[in-house]
Amino acid sequence: MKSSFLLCLVLALAMTTVSPAFAADPAGDVTLAEDPNAPVNFTWTLIAAFLVFLMQGGFAMLEGGLVRAKNVSNIMMKNLSDFAIGSLGFWAIGFPLMFGTSVAGIFGASKWLLTGEAYDVSTYLLWIFQMVFAGTAATIASGAMAERTKFRTYYIISFIITSLIYPVYGHWVWGGGWLSTLPFGLGHVDFAGSGVVHMVGGGAGLAGALLLGARIGKYDKDGKPRAIPGHSISMVMLGVFLLWFGWFGFNPGSTLAATELRISIIAVTTLLAGSAGGVAATLYTWKKFGRPDVTMAGNGVIAGLVAITAPSAWVEAWAAVVIGLAAGFIMVESVLLFERKGVDDPIGAISCHLIAGIWGLISVGIFADGTYGLYTTEAPMVVGLLYGGGVGQLVAQVIGVAANFAWVFGTSYSILWVLKKTLGLRVSKEEELVGLDLSEHGAVGYPYFVSRPEERSE
Amino acid sequence: MKSSFLLCLVLALAMTTVSPAFAADPAGDVTLAEDPNAPVNFTWTLIAAFLVFLMQGGFAMLEGGLVRAKNVSNIMMKNLSDFAIGSLGFWAIGFPLMFGTSVAGIFGASKWLLTGEAYDVSTYLLWIFQMVFAGTAATIASGAMAERTKFRTYYIISFIITSLIYPVYGHWVWGGGWLSTLPFGLGHVDFAGSGVVHMVGGGAGLAGALLLGARIGKYDKDGKPRAIPGHSISMVMLGVFLLWFGWFGFNPGSTLAATELRISIIAVTTLLAGSAGGVAATLYTWKKFGRPDVTMAGNGVIAGLVAITAPSAWVEAWAAVVIGLAAGFIMVESVLLFERKGVDDPIGAISCHLIAGIWGLISVGIFADGTYGLYTTEAPMVVGLLYGGGVGQLVAQVIGVAANFAWVFGTSYSILWVLKKTLGLRVSKEEELVGLDLSEHGAVGYPYFVSRPEERSE
Amino acid sequence: MKSSFLLCLVLALAMTTVSPAFAADPAGDVTLAEDPNAPVNFTWTLIAAFLVFLMQGGFAMLEGGLVRAKNVSNIMMKNLSDFAIGSLGFWAIGFPLMFGTSVAGIFGASKWLLTGEAYDVSTYLLWIFQMVFAGTAATIASGAMAERTKFRTYYIISFIITSLIYPVYGHWVWGGGWLSTLPFGLGHVDFAGSGVVHMVGGGAGLAGALLLGARIGKYDKDGKPRAIPGHSISMVMLGVFLLWFGWFGFNPGSTLAATELRISIIAVTTLLAGSAGGVAATLYTWKKFGRPDVTMAGNGVIAGLVAITAPSAWVEAWAAVVIGLAAGFIMVESVLLFERKGVDDPIGAISCHLIAGIWGLISVGIFADGTYGLYTTEAPMVVGLLYGGGVGQLVAQVIGVAANFAWVFGTSYSILWVLKKTLGLRVSKEEELVGLDLSEHGAVGYPYFVSRPEERSE
Repeated sequence: MKSSFLLCLVLALAMTTVSPAFAADPAGDVTLAEDPNAPVNFTWTLIAAFLVFLMQGGFAMLEGGLVRAKNVSNIMMKNLSDFAIGSLGFWAIGFPLMFGTSVAGIFGASKWLLTGEAYDVSTYLLWIFQMVFAGTAATIASGAMAERTKFRTYYIISFIITSLIYPVYGHWVWGGGWLSTLPFGLGHVDFAGSGVVHMVGGGAGLAGALLLGARIGKYDKDGKPRAIPGHSISMVMLGVFLLWFGWFGFNPGSTLAATELRISIIAVTTLLAGSAGGVAATLYTWKKFGRPDVTMAGNGVIAGLVAITAPSAWVEAWAAVVIGLAAGFIMVESVLLFERKGVDDPIGAISCHLIAGIWGLISVGIFADGTYGLYTTEAPMVVGLLYGGGVGQLVAQVIGVAANFAWVFGTSYSILWVLKKTLGLRVSKEEELVGLDLSEHGAVGYPYFVSRPEERSE
Repeated sequence: MKSSFLLCLVLALAMTTVSPAFAADPAGDVTLAEDPNAPVNFTWTLIAAFLVFLMQGGFAMLEGGLVRAKNVSNIMMKNLSDFAIGSLGFWAIGFPLMFGTSVAGIFGASKWLLTGEAYDVSTYLLWIFQMVFAGTAATIASGAMAERTKFRTYYIISFIITSLIYPVYGHWVWGGGWLSTLPFGLGHVDFAGSGVVHMVGGGAGLAGALLLGARIGKYDKDGKPRAIPGHSISMVMLGVFLLWFGWFGFNPGSTLAATELRISIIAVTTLLAGSAGGVAATLYTWKKFGRPDVTMAGNGVIAGLVAITAPSAWVEAWAAVVIGLAAGFIMVESVLLFERKGVDDPIGAISCHLIAGIWGLISVGIFADGTYGLYTTEAPMVVGLLYGGGVGQLVAQVIGVAANFAWVFGTSYSILWVLKKTLGLRVSKEEELVGLDLSEHGAVGYPYFVSRPEERSE
Repeated sequence: MKSSFLLCLVLALAMTTVSPAFAADPAGDVTLAEDPNAPVNFTWTLIAAFLVFLMQGGFAMLEGGLVRAKNVSNIMMKNLSDFAIGSLGFWAIGFPLMFGTSVAGIFGASKWLLTGEAYDVSTYLLWIFQMVFAGTAATIASGAMAERTKFRTYYIISFIITSLIYPVYGHWVWGGGWLSTLPFGLGHVDFAGSGVVHMVGGGAGLAGALLLGARIGKYDKDGKPRAIPGHSISMVMLGVFLLWFGWFGFNPGSTLAATELRISIIAVTTLLAGSAGGVAATLYTWKKFGRPDVTMAGNGVIAGLVAITAPSAWVEAWAAVVIGLAAGFIMVESVLLFERKGVDDPIGAISCHLIAGIWGLISVGIFADGTYGLYTTEAPMVVGLLYGGGVGQLVAQVIGVAANFAWVFGTSYSILWVLKKTLGLRVSKEEELVGLDLSEHGAVGYPYFVSRPEERSE
């Protein structure tokens, strides 16, 4: 039985840690004596982490609202499970790979299981903030793969994203790895994770969507896409608001310190880029389709937020508005393009996270205004093209985009391909038609309401 | 095309700001050196702002739950859009009008676009806190105008509320304008915005509801009102809890400083007034109708919270209970009165925000106990009638109420009247009957559930 | 009329407090002068309290989703009302009983109505943090009693839990009462309330469920239990995420001080135990029933969180995983056992809160690792069996479990028994069949959707 095995493993590992004297500072008194600002910085970082955690609920609502009623329990379960199993993976393996002592700039290798020298208030603080980021990356993929992926396979790939794919790339950028030391600009920089989190989630989602193929009924006999609307717009919009709320932890919290007063500027750029993305998607769909599209407006906010994530600390308000407007426009075009190309992404995760994430990384090389450095005012300033920084930073950003896509898409596609050939990736046709709630979990999401007898997409 | 125009405008403005040397303190190191308490005060104010932001989601749920299922996408879109477009307006025009250098105490005129001298950590901090307040005022109006207002017109009026109506009144009270310098009491005072935010939103909503007229089916042939229940009580109650949660940012956060330890007292008065409002509405409807009314109980909490917003920092626990109980009672009576008078307010926004807001402003002049001043312990104390302060403060409060209503209702009514005569304010009868989801956005909120064939209200 | 009586009572009490000079520090300047860390500790504690408050919304969603559609308005109303009326009770009576000057270690008796000497920033800070805990205990009971309890009786018992049952037990553990001074280990310890909050709520719920009896249709003619699924899995899962989010205030916030940097470790143990509980319930139901059960997975997270609440500050990461895994497993078995034994608990509150709460208290005596003391690094360390602490702490924990159950179950059962014989506890058969929304409040939760004509459980 899996759970008893896991329990035994944990107990065995645990036993090895009971006896030794504790290194580091598990009580916090030593850290406090050394740094009188530690309480406010811990407060700031922890609360930011909690807000980011709530994005799990936001994604559950966004993705849940955008699937059909017959798949809602399944997507809820996936959103809960990728975080639950992923956090155990990130505890045991992922965090050490990302933030352990670097092996040649490729991956880390220490701080296993948060025990021994890692049993320390500062290490645990870093862990929880990074964990909720890893959880975000993992949960993004579930959207692109919604309504047809086997739960068993999804459970495994979630564990692998959080334990391996995400942390290794994260090490390259945030763990002192090779991308952070590129000889262009200040090396590849990504303030809060347009690349580390969103491109990773979106890239894995793209691999999944390609290997899965489109949902039954998504394309007609001539290959023309048909709309498959989600089952609850109110859930979708609640999701957007919860995500936006969580993003105020995501971006400003990434200073890990309230003594960096730049946090107020990061909060403002985050707000404005989200708004601008929403406005752009609203106005553009209004013009293009004759009506302002509600789902697109919500996704426009998400795209604006994804795009501002990398540059949020290095640009001023007007640039955030420009970045957000562009992201909203790009997202709408991208959704339509992927749909035309036969890539069926039920919630638009690829466009919102992968594509807008790329734009976010690039935008650092253009708009960074040279007033702030790498997480501190004392480091060298990040400067983009518009502010006399030359093309160096832009080059570093492009290299990061390429490395991210190559690693994430490459590993995700390979692993999912193996899983497809072994465990299987997609449910059967019958299971898909009846809905994954019944076929995978034996229980529908809304047993007391009458469904429309024929769903037009089938 | 609107979006390209907006993009060009932003880019043009942006270009003018690329070259100049930065005034102020965009990195925050100067501010930190001057004020060692800045980190904790920034932390407090930012997190409070984030909580207030989440009230957008709370209003979306509350309003969404209280409309019929056929209008849910539309109200979601309005709640998202008023914030998104409103934040661009508050960035460009609203904030400068409210907090720029005062022109004769009437309006401000500097800090445009948060650039130049406004590119400063303290200015951005103030902006985000004020922005989420402005967004709250804007979104309140959508409720009173729900289920029949054209999206296009609503989009425009939202922009105007956030860019003009709200900031000018805000300048009078919080920007150093004429109401704050009245020669009675300490001038008109409004700790966290019973007037500045709630009366403004409610007053604009009243203007809209009057110009729109009642929904089809709201009154029978004899003019007797008929109940049109909302479509989801669970959404309504989620909205109430999210709003209450956000209110803990709204009121205690308004100190803008955690060094004001009065924040704990403000949090307690906020909690108790909300509870008391809920209890009063529950018991009063129980007695009056024979059953405790669920929606009224939720609105009772909101009314209690609106009422305590102005006095929250200046009263002790028992007074908060009294203010909240009265607010719950007043709200129920007000809802029934407006309904009898033919003013159709689908969610009770006028009663919860305008009427309870008036009571909140007045209550300062009665219950303020002289233990705390204007946002600091070092200012003169606010004292009401019951504590030997005489009628001075009460007079200042009444003048503020009158000025608020005159300005907000006057401008809202005038502008909406012009919009009604030009773009049109209300959808056609056919569009209203089919629902705004289909007619305005081409997509229903819940496509997979079977609706009741006849809605009794039509 | 009840509300006018309450109003009069409050006003009468209030009048007595208008004149006296204020003791203590209502403005906060004295406290600030004495403790330069007060701002960051107030910030930490208040925001933690706000997060705990949001658990009210989380419970509303969890319980709301798990009842049938015909009872959703009623459970929403109960969740709102137990907090609203309960907070008035905790203000007037509960807090003084819990934290007033101790009378022989049995109950407290001062600080009435938060007035006089209690009108102080530190006292109000403690009050709000404790109030949201009391509210959590009260709202847990509503789940076990769902779908058949009279609203009137529930209103009364909620008031009694918050005013009497909870505070007296709370005094024994957190108010300096007799359990905290037991001569075993460091006395009975309960960091954030596995016992004080969760066992209390679950114990009261058990008393209620026993006195109520099972819902109509829960058992077939042979006494075999039948599943009565909830009406919305998306609400359930939103509830789980909101509760988890709130728990990050519940556990780490219980230091009441950010100067205790141990808060980062508490946050991590809280996250991991929740995840482990979810994973255990997922894998165990997968093995047992052949499919991963969605509702059980959500309840597994809750059980893990309940269990880690008591030990969260005293264990390291691996122990949190073990405690959470065990809690998830225990919860599933407990749900099935209570169901077999005829105790009908519609949302699993007894298993998640009472049973997992017992496990949490016990686990302190096993896994506490001796690196942290009672809310401070300067107190003696809490040490369990595995770390050479002997059985002393374990004995103190077991005594606490017994005392908790005896007091809570005893008083709840007695009071509910009296209420049953006087006002009545359960609605009539006809009312239960038609649903409590219509029979108790005259309004259904979702008036525009078509229900399934026959609910199989009736």
